[in-house]
Amino acid sequence: MDIIVLNHDATEKDVENIVQKLEKWGLNAHISQGTERTIIGVIGDTSKVSEDEENAIRVTQGVENVLRILKPYKLASREFRKENTVITVRDQIVGGRKIPVMAGPCAVENASVLLDNAEKVKASGASFLRGGAFKPRTSPYSFQGLGEEGLQYLAEAREKTGLPIITELMDIRDLDIIMQYTDIIQIGARNMQNFRLLLEVGAVDKPVLLKRGLSSTIKEWLMSAEYIMSRGNQNVMLCERGIRTFETATRNTLDLSAVPLLKELSHLPVVVDPSHGVGKWNLVGPMAKAALAAGADALIIEVHPNPAEAMSDGEQSLKPDHFDTLMKELKPIAHIMRREM
Amino acid sequence: MDIIVLNHDATEKDVENIVQKLEKWGLNAHISQGTERTIIGVIGDTSKVSEDEENAIRVTQGVENVLRILKPYKLASREFRKENTVITVRDQIVGGRKIPVMAGPCAVENASVLLDNAEKVKASGASFLRGGAFKPRTSPYSFQGLGEEGLQYLAEAREKTGLPIITELMDIRDLDIIMQYTDIIQIGARNMQNFRLLLEVGAVDKPVLLKRGLSSTIKEWLMSAEYIMSRGNQNVMLCERGIRTFETATRNTLDLSAVPLLKELSHLPVVVDPSHGVGKWNLVGPMAKAALAAGADALIIEVHPNPAEAMSDGEQSLKPDHFDTLMKELKPIAHIMRREM
Amino acid sequence: MDIIVLNHDATEKDVENIVQKLEKWGLNAHISQGTERTIIGVIGDTSKVSEDEENAIRVTQGVENVLRILKPYKLASREFRKENTVITVRDQIVGGRKIPVMAGPCAVENASVLLDNAEKVKASGASFLRGGAFKPRTSPYSFQGLGEEGLQYLAEAREKTGLPIITELMDIRDLDIIMQYTDIIQIGARNMQNFRLLLEVGAVDKPVLLKRGLSSTIKEWLMSAEYIMSRGNQNVMLCERGIRTFETATRNTLDLSAVPLLKELSHLPVVVDPSHGVGKWNLVGPMAKAALAAGADALIIEVHPNPAEAMSDGEQSLKPDHFDTLMKELKPIAHIMRREM
Amino acid sequence: MDIIVLNHDATEKDVENIVQKLEKWGLNAHISQGTERTIIGVIGDTSKVSEDEENAIRVTQGVENVLRILKPYKLASREFRKENTVITVRDQIVGGRKIPVMAGPCAVENASVLLDNAEKVKASGASFLRGGAFKPRTSPYSFQGLGEEGLQYLAEAREKTGLPIITELMDIRDLDIIMQYTDIIQIGARNMQNFRLLLEVGAVDKPVLLKRGLSSTIKEWLMSAEYIMSRGNQNVMLCERGIRTFETATRNTLDLSAVPLLKELSHLPVVVDPSHGVGKWNLVGPMAKAALAAGADALIIEVHPNPAEAMSDGEQSLKPDHFDTLMKELKPIAHIMRREM
Repeated sequence: MDIIVLNHDATEKDVENIVQKLEKWGLNAHISQGTERTIIGVIGDTSKVSEDEENAIRVTQGVENVLRILKPYKLASREFRKENTVITVRDQIVGGRKIPVMAGPCAVENASVLLDNAEKVKASGASFLRGGAFKPRTSPYSFQGLGEEGLQYLAEAREKTGLPIITELMDIRDLDIIMQYTDIIQIGARNMQNFRLLLEVGAVDKPVLLKRGLSSTIKEWLMSAEYIMSRGNQNVMLCERGIRTFETATRNTLDLSAVPLLKELSHLPVVVDPSHGVGKWNLVGPMAKAALAAGADALIIEVHPNPAEAMSDGEQSLKPDHFDTLMKELKPIAHIMRREM
Repeated sequence: MDIIVLNHDATEKDVENIVQKLEKWGLNAHISQGTERTIIGVIGDTSKVSEDEENAIRVTQGVENVLRILKPYKLASREFRKENTVITVRDQIVGGRKIPVMAGPCAVENASVLLDNAEKVKASGASFLRGGAFKPRTSPYSFQGLGEEGLQYLAEAREKTGLPIITELMDIRDLDIIMQYTDIIQIGARNMQNFRLLLEVGAVDKPVLLKRGLSSTIKEWLMSAEYIMSRGNQNVMLCERGIRTFETATRNTLDLSAVPLLKELSHLPVVVDPSHGVGKWNLVGPMAKAALAAGADALIIEVHPNPAEAMSDGEQSLKPDHFDTLMKELKPIAHIMRREM
Repeated sequence: MDIIVLNHDATEKDVENIVQKLEKWGLNAHISQGTERTIIGVIGDTSKVSEDEENAIRVTQGVENVLRILKPYKLASREFRKENTVITVRDQIVGGRKIPVMAGPCAVENASVLLDNAEKVKASGASFLRGGAFKPRTSPYSFQGLGEEGLQYLAEAREKTGLPIITELMDIRDLDIIMQYTDIIQIGARNMQNFRLLLEVGAVDKPVLLKRGLSSTIKEWLMSAEYIMSRGNQNVMLCERGIRTFETATRNTLDLSAVPLLKELSHLPVVVDPSHGVGKWNLVGPMAKAALAAGADALIIEVHPNPAEAMSDGEQSLKPDHFDTLMKELKPIAHIMRREM
Repeated sequence: MDIIVLNHDATEKDVENIVQKLEKWGLNAHISQGTERTIIGVIGDTSKVSEDEENAIRVTQGVENVLRILKPYKLASREFRKENTVITVRDQIVGGRKIPVMAGPCAVENASVLLDNAEKVKASGASFLRGGAFKPRTSPYSFQGLGEEGLQYLAEAREKTGLPIITELMDIRDLDIIMQYTDIIQIGARNMQNFRLLLEVGAVDKPVLLKRGLSSTIKEWLMSAEYIMSRGNQNVMLCERGIRTFETATRNTLDLSAVPLLKELSHLPVVVDPSHGVGKWNLVGPMAKAALAAGADALIIEVHPNPAEAMSDGEQSLKPDHFDTLMKELKPIAHIMRREM
């Protein structure tokens, strides 16, 4: 049910006109005459009223405001599906009792460094290997990733370590090639509202990790998940990676309150990326722990054997030994949360 | 020249290590030993030092901070090109003495309404017809635009009115079809950092109107222009359309200070979109006037014959008669700014 | 009228409980049973329902949300008073046809520099002399203002030039001394929600210029005006001075859309401070012009004879000759807006 | 050491002029001539260069930018004092191995409810009783607190339970009366830059809990702590309580990354307030846990026996039994962090 609030000088004719519009859409009006304002309760299945029709009402003569009560997303909502979504990726599970960690370099740089990295993060307990082959960079003059060569290195590392891989899709035209290699498709923060890309990954049968846009509200984020799910792909993971605020001491502001809020609003698994969230390697550990304590279902963490030589994001990458220590520290927190690592 | 600030406990060996790195890149170091800190001035052409190499320095042993003095964009900068870029589109000019107004509906809905709209905005003095055939919508359940049919209607309206057209490109795969119809390619706010799309429009020979991302800094925006220009296309217009802030009384916060700042930092023409900037039709007029007074080179304004029936953004669309009045009010402001309309 | 939206699993007992609460407050309930949700329209004078009582309803069993339709401010609202408030200060008027400019240094530094400054801004057409005697500074080690000595210099400059003065009140304990000297009491951005200070200036008979807080919404700002007005002082001017956003290229983001929006929501005069709004002297001119075009009733601008020696805010101060040029450029814009300068 | 970056067209005379200014302040210049820019390294004790002098340099002919390397706060910095500050309040300690919890109602409402609340939170393990006697409220029509009567109730509850108390100071004029009752003086978010209030609490001998301003950077927050400490009072606790961002699904965005960052930058204890941070009682528990995992030294949590009847902030208050459960869940997290509760 939506509510239409009328201006204090709305006429009876205005009301009649609105009621007719609603009836044309198969809805009924329930009019409450207040001392200061008249409001119209809209009765019927308003989920079929589009955003556009709602906006049309908003500018109709006599209308002061339109209030939408129902959430604009459906498939992604906890109301639609009570049980948590559990996503199986090869022999790994996201959204279950075990908390998987996805670890690896920001960008794939060469085969041997990647393999070494993969072996180390596996030994420390990581469940997935992350690594970018196509990199979204602010500057056209920065390293843009190895492309398919990077995907091959990821696949080789998977073969040797058994770790399923996750890598980012930036361009619709790369979907086929990415599908040949990856286990999870990552949609980056800058593409969270690249709606065409969302529709395409909604039509394939691989899980999608959807990062939150730098300035996206939780509602918009769930609407983007809805885009993917509306095309059939129900295996969506939501990844909090920090939002843009006025604070410049950290790269972004990691919004951990999004974790319990999403668990309430949605049934989808929630992943936290503390590396991009803070942008400073020495803050990654505390925020990873905090993410687990807040109820995160998984973590994604940047690890690089030699951050001072990394081709991107060295500042926020953990060295393998720091990662190893962190994994040991996370385990007891997972246990307290009645989870495993 | 970049500046490297060392930790107060950096050793001589740390300094040596950094100097060697710089020399490997063909740069020289100029060391200043202060009472509290040592700093290294980097001498040579540091514009060739990539963002990645800079970040690598940042995490090198002994380094506290790296300060970049030179701007990261070049082709888009006023230093690179002193004179204003003037863009010719058919018989119209953007960035010249005359201030063109781009007007029309948010989305193309049908041929006759569009044509009527085009004729009216032309009669009021508009120089371009705007209209979306492919619409980025927050919800997958909202109207997504007419697609090529919409482009055809735009082309028909151009034929009949003589107004060149501007329409949005959302998807790389639509580039060819858009190129067949449009005069200016619009890149929307949500795609300002869709870097692959930027590279593609950088390789075609039509002007591009690049909207500012909802949470993009002016530096990032100019870097996105640089992406386009680095591929050859120098005809880029920057369009301020409001940024996302904590204020919810307006749809966005229109950042008009960006106008004079961009005119100082860059030679590219600056367009202002007051319709999306505020999201309320009754604030569009005052902000359009303010934009001219702040030094804007062009305006883009939503006009719809019947906002209460518009399929998108009715709330922020002017009716043709309001638009006509506004155009009359803008003219004397343009004159004071030593421009014409 | 307020609206109470119930959970989809709210029971009849929950409804009964809420209705009883409302009736205890002298209100009636109007229940609409929708297909998905039940909503309760609250009938009666809900302006007497406090924020606290509203919050209490919000956490009552069965309640999902409470929507407040009426604005929380009353005396400051356009609905309460249709005509513009016009404030007379000695022989000057704020909120009338003439647009007064308040000009002068950020901080009063010494008698002769101030007097020289005052004479120059008067010659250029300023109507008020601004200058801080008590300065809010981020650092305890920065110059904090001359205190009463500064007020004396301001009064001397007023005597010699005839310009009424405006100066900031930071501390309740300074109210008496400020009242002896100033013509307008300025409440700074950092004190916009210093509620005790607001109550005190609400009880005196001098006009108050209330600056918007760095991260205050327009609603909160009007609530702060309401604080002052609720104690009797109706002579409040609202001063937009930039809000804090993610953008760092300007000191703040000057929100000019606040100007027409405030003129719609409130009857109080709206002043714009482009100096603090952008923080760079070369952007002050364009934004001052834009402010007039957006409908501002007055401007407040920092002018300093020698910004490179100013004890605070030199970066954003205009030199007297730049100010003189600007005043000449503003005049025709004022005329177009059917105002005078 | 500060760095002065010159314009690319700065003349030798400009340089000379700057060097003279620096020498007047007892500093030396170290000039580096780069290919694109000249920079001046400032040598000597620049901590004595005030913010104002720095700004004066910034607008000097030939200067493009001034970079400050040293932090503007000193007493609050970790560099000044390596060991953690530990604050003793009666028989409790803040900043030590034990993590104290400050619990109680938002506002003191009456003696018996407060005492009951105090006994319950004590039984659950709280170490301090919180409660507001003077309340900063957005609306002048909301409940403003009981004033001294509220302080008396707090003191009575302390006598009966032994819990030291913490309450907010809003108005300099209330300092004496607050000093008679409270154990810790709370400075609220809206007063974080009420510099006069900071100076006053800097001159008394009770610990101060300084809440972060809604839109204050970490640097500004530490500068406000510096204000207090510069007057002698070294017992300052920093309390993260959420910042204002574009997200509206939570009341504020709790910035937990501030916790490890502050522990790095400063020696002062860090307290987290999850109640105001998120504004929804059901998110308070997860965020309290996350705060401990991020390294918080203490928590402050709102508890109310009957949130639906609370006179303020009922939405974010835990019921005593929920608080009791939370305290049990926090204990093992504290142990993992090598702390106690």
